[in-house]
Amino acid sequence: MRTIRHIQELREAVRQARRENPGLRVGFVPTMGYLHDGHASLMESAREQCGFVILSIFVNPLQFGPNEDFSRYPRNEERDLAVAAAAGVDIVFMPSVEEMYPQPTKTIVSVSQMTEKLCGASRPGHFDGVATVVSKLFQIVQPDAAYFGLKDAQQIAVIEQLVHDLNMPVEIVPCPIIREADGLAMSSRNVYLQPEEREQALVLSQSLNYAGQRIRDQRGGLDAEAVTASVRKLIEEKPLAVIDYVELLSYPSLEAVNRIHSGDRIIIALAIKFGKTRLIDNMILTL
Amino acid sequence: MRTIRHIQELREAVRQARRENPGLRVGFVPTMGYLHDGHASLMESAREQCGFVILSIFVNPLQFGPNEDFSRYPRNEERDLAVAAAAGVDIVFMPSVEEMYPQPTKTIVSVSQMTEKLCGASRPGHFDGVATVVSKLFQIVQPDAAYFGLKDAQQIAVIEQLVHDLNMPVEIVPCPIIREADGLAMSSRNVYLQPEEREQALVLSQSLNYAGQRIRDQRGGLDAEAVTASVRKLIEEKPLAVIDYVELLSYPSLEAVNRIHSGDRIIIALAIKFGKTRLIDNMILTL
Repeated sequence: MRTIRHIQELREAVRQARRENPGLRVGFVPTMGYLHDGHASLMESAREQCGFVILSIFVNPLQFGPNEDFSRYPRNEERDLAVAAAAGVDIVFMPSVEEMYPQPTKTIVSVSQMTEKLCGASRPGHFDGVATVVSKLFQIVQPDAAYFGLKDAQQIAVIEQLVHDLNMPVEIVPCPIIREADGLAMSSRNVYLQPEEREQALVLSQSLNYAGQRIRDQRGGLDAEAVTASVRKLIEEKPLAVIDYVELLSYPSLEAVNRIHSGDRIIIALAIKFGKTRLIDNMILTL
Repeated sequence: MRTIRHIQELREAVRQARRENPGLRVGFVPTMGYLHDGHASLMESAREQCGFVILSIFVNPLQFGPNEDFSRYPRNEERDLAVAAAAGVDIVFMPSVEEMYPQPTKTIVSVSQMTEKLCGASRPGHFDGVATVVSKLFQIVQPDAAYFGLKDAQQIAVIEQLVHDLNMPVEIVPCPIIREADGLAMSSRNVYLQPEEREQALVLSQSLNYAGQRIRDQRGGLDAEAVTASVRKLIEEKPLAVIDYVELLSYPSLEAVNRIHSGDRIIIALAIKFGKTRLIDNMILTL
């Protein structure tokens, strides 16, 4: 496994791999590091489907708001490299902020409409930062396929839209949410949680499971507002949980849904704060 | 020469050309058609420097304002194909609007700051449309080099910024302005001009030449405002000419310049209306 920190060197390594192996499928897993089993599952999918796998680790300042956790976002380079090596990654690309943004970028890639809901509403500018850095990384790596986790379901919807609209020759591969044994969705931010918060955070997956069961039991004609209200009620029972949003929308278009009908593809998505820590989770259902 | 109207077919043709000829340099000339000798010079430069040349002809609705000339922009497919064939182009890519925008795009590529001046100020949204369609075309064609005419000097500055910021693996090759024998910069929009307008339109190049001479004669310490005022005065002598802008800025950063100093690289740029027809011209000087 090679560790590469410079764009030019990465380009040359990919070019060489393609030259040595015409028809090579290059898989790409963009991450912000502090790797957990969710990331590992992305690398494994890439490893299964591609002859060459590139992992990037870059905490992208452009997608953090001024009062968010950019500077305190957890980092552990040594452990990340061990996880990547164990997953059979060929190249770990770890550029510095200066390498990615030698000057402040004047160019922004912006996806409208579907970014106005959920995390886009709570984190203004966040998805512009995501769309811009993903565009940059795709231009640098030029992968055939890129792997993203469905915990960030809105992010996947935004990136699929971006790739479609800009005709990027990349296949986006959404991968299932990986959870702890007790149901908590894996996240680099879980390390922020105090023990009591960690325990109450189970309400995210539990309330989603409850809502999913309720929708499955009563297919068609169920009122979306009734579903989100019941999820809110469960979350409000946890004293440390502060609701950022609980929403039921169409997926991947992320448009408002009033009544849930058979055949609909919907997402129930939530963002909950425990102290300074903001956790997200979701369930996508095709009815 | 092949004429291709579909994105998938174009991708396959480029892939095949690269497969048959490893190390092939692919040159790309994006145009809106109604080709003139300015376009021909771009194709010739591409032909000299590249083993494979792709010309695109696409009148991009996204870069026209609601009251601009999208619907009446001149088109002549048959003549364009003859010009392209004569220039030795390998592929002409002529997608329909539906092919490029099967749905209205939600994704916009936007370059800030340098788009606020000159044509960006006169044509709100124009450069978002340019940056977005050029990003799309670069993803579709995946050229090694792309050729643009310096008549649209701001467009080149914007595209160079875009390519730099998004790490696009494309070399941007700026090509000199091609002029009629009497000095008028070639433009597809010149066909709009009535005979009297055509005659008075010579003031664009004449006033630029006058300003350039004045700057060259008095290197350093010349007041930018004095230069643009003298250009304005010359243009205002032509009764049919209506000034949109006359500006002297740094190039390619397009920032305000007060005094012109030795070593500066500057642009004198102007946009002049004759009836409904808007013409642009410029002179870039390194002092």
